[in-house]
Amino acid sequence: MKTTPKSFIREILKVTENPAIISFAGGLPNPSLFATRELARAAHDVIAGEGKETLQYTTTEGFPPLRRFIADRYRKRLGINVSPDEILITNGSQQCLDLIGKVFIDSGSRVAIERPGYLGAIQAFSLYEPAFVPVPLNEEGPDPLALEAAARKDPPRLFYGVPNSQNPSGITWSADRRSDIAAILREAGTVFVEDDAYGELRFDGAPLPPVFSLLQGQGVMTGSFSKIIAPGLRVGWIAAPAEIMEQLVTAKQASDLHSNHVAQRIIARYLAENPLDDQIPRIVGMYRKQRDTMAACVEQFFPEEVSCTRPDGGMFLWAELPEECSSMELFARALKEGVAILPGKPFYTDGGGANTLRLNFSNQSEDRIREGMHRLSMVLKEYLR
Amino acid sequence: MKTTPKSFIREILKVTENPAIISFAGGLPNPSLFATRELARAAHDVIAGEGKETLQYTTTEGFPPLRRFIADRYRKRLGINVSPDEILITNGSQQCLDLIGKVFIDSGSRVAIERPGYLGAIQAFSLYEPAFVPVPLNEEGPDPLALEAAARKDPPRLFYGVPNSQNPSGITWSADRRSDIAAILREAGTVFVEDDAYGELRFDGAPLPPVFSLLQGQGVMTGSFSKIIAPGLRVGWIAAPAEIMEQLVTAKQASDLHSNHVAQRIIARYLAENPLDDQIPRIVGMYRKQRDTMAACVEQFFPEEVSCTRPDGGMFLWAELPEECSSMELFARALKEGVAILPGKPFYTDGGGANTLRLNFSNQSEDRIREGMHRLSMVLKEYLR
Repeated sequence: MKTTPKSFIREILKVTENPAIISFAGGLPNPSLFATRELARAAHDVIAGEGKETLQYTTTEGFPPLRRFIADRYRKRLGINVSPDEILITNGSQQCLDLIGKVFIDSGSRVAIERPGYLGAIQAFSLYEPAFVPVPLNEEGPDPLALEAAARKDPPRLFYGVPNSQNPSGITWSADRRSDIAAILREAGTVFVEDDAYGELRFDGAPLPPVFSLLQGQGVMTGSFSKIIAPGLRVGWIAAPAEIMEQLVTAKQASDLHSNHVAQRIIARYLAENPLDDQIPRIVGMYRKQRDTMAACVEQFFPEEVSCTRPDGGMFLWAELPEECSSMELFARALKEGVAILPGKPFYTDGGGANTLRLNFSNQSEDRIREGMHRLSMVLKEYLR
Repeated sequence: MKTTPKSFIREILKVTENPAIISFAGGLPNPSLFATRELARAAHDVIAGEGKETLQYTTTEGFPPLRRFIADRYRKRLGINVSPDEILITNGSQQCLDLIGKVFIDSGSRVAIERPGYLGAIQAFSLYEPAFVPVPLNEEGPDPLALEAAARKDPPRLFYGVPNSQNPSGITWSADRRSDIAAILREAGTVFVEDDAYGELRFDGAPLPPVFSLLQGQGVMTGSFSKIIAPGLRVGWIAAPAEIMEQLVTAKQASDLHSNHVAQRIIARYLAENPLDDQIPRIVGMYRKQRDTMAACVEQFFPEEVSCTRPDGGMFLWAELPEECSSMELFARALKEGVAILPGKPFYTDGGGANTLRLNFSNQSEDRIREGMHRLSMVLKEYLR
């Protein structure tokens, strides 16, 4: 427990709750996209119409029609075969990480992770006291030479990564890089944990094959309805081959018996009445415009010394200041001008990253993005002078 | 992970899903008590009326009005002062046990538990590899001499117990026993984990003081809406003093960020519109009659060699067969006659209990209780002959 970092994000978000502040610090979906009317009806109907079942305990694995929906969607969208029996419903995809920690990580187990890596995974895994092995991310994905060197020394038990529109960097691994990484992992016998929170939120181009599908049983993949329906329902899932699934189910049962049955049935009902393929374009359309606006502001306002990613999906841009700069210092200065950013340091498991920051675009209007980015650029210029 | 017992109950419950079987094996609340109409309306209203908040991420600690409700109810019902800040909302009370494991249990930590003890706690704690210290239960509660001897040898880090209508035994600790146990725990510096899943389901007499209130900061108390509203919503809570709470919140955040926000708001809205003091008597009234029926059947039909508890609340009776008997054998024989019981062995952390069994009365009509108990008594007589 003592090794688990307190959430820095959480502390920062408290500072930025003031609605007058233009916050790029958080990671919230845009609530204007929530289908409140349709979800309210679905909620009413599953409780009024099938309340004796909906309100009762259910199985640890989750509501069967929802597991079938997820398996079907993998087949239709990505062409991969996952049986509904290989899907476990969780409390958002954060819980997948806790269950994976329970099943795979002993104190001192080597766990490879992208550098920078997703903070939620660092927190969840830290409880189980792994030895993190950071693998530097570049434009195409994780550096294969670094992963290979780490595997040669002592193969990590797990490699955790976010191949689509990574949090925090916004980077999507290229198709070639996926194959290269899969080959290294197969050779090393390392289990891949593929966090696919943003796969449905792809703005440009066709989806790339999940690493999961290249590894045939040597990986698990997590997903979530948080970004495509609503996070307050806390429904995610993990896809895993049978032998791993059995252990995940045992861990899930010991952790909380099963996920919210009501929320599972609300989502299943909602999806039956509101095809996801009609919903996704609305979300992608809005986020793409917000990404465009933020990226245009970077181009137009930011000093050249600041480099920025241009993500092809997801919710975040990632910026690097010149090496000697501190994004904590920038955070403090920007806050005085009514803009919040997220310093990137907590996304590094080995120190470093003090000059990096994350910018969220999904939860501000285009006008506020423009205004906030303009102010931020003034602060940046002043700071870099 | 490998030390976590697979749920025996879960495997047995699969066998007994056949509706033709009269099952006393499970532990489900009676679904005829679920307020489906009221909960459906509450669900509709919180999503349609305040959807942008309800469907969004929220704080790890939980929905403030619900935390206030819980603190208020402790004050009104039990006269104890708990601040809303000392309440953390969880996914049912099972998750409390996982969080407690994360915060308190290292591999080899001594964890005292009633003998027999609640299986869900044994499972949740086992993930963290404690050394269990079983403390025999007798009619008045845990044996103080056994607890004292264990504490003298090497004080346990935790003592987990269910003072009100324990699962599986149905035993309620007497007021004197509560004071005695509290004194021993204070002296030993052992933290008490008080699972109060059944406190509201008391059939006879006024509530007894929680051990939590006798320990002043050296204990935590868990609770749940599963037995008094509905388990499918998966909303429980843990009350803990500030220093412990801080660690529980960090563990909760790493585990799943926060509990289902929609379910928390549904419950808060439902409680605002439907006073719990109007609901509890309906539940208690029904379960009391079921308890009476089952206890009368024991009296009338069961052979003398079988001893049975007569619980003053909760959902279970506990029976002991003569020592050389096997309740697994009885299970197999009873199933052939269309009755399911729950063998008691998995409730023992140190072996033993092979001659014990648990009988649930909350989820069968009085007619089916009579029919099932009559059949069971025939099987018993045949087996004991």
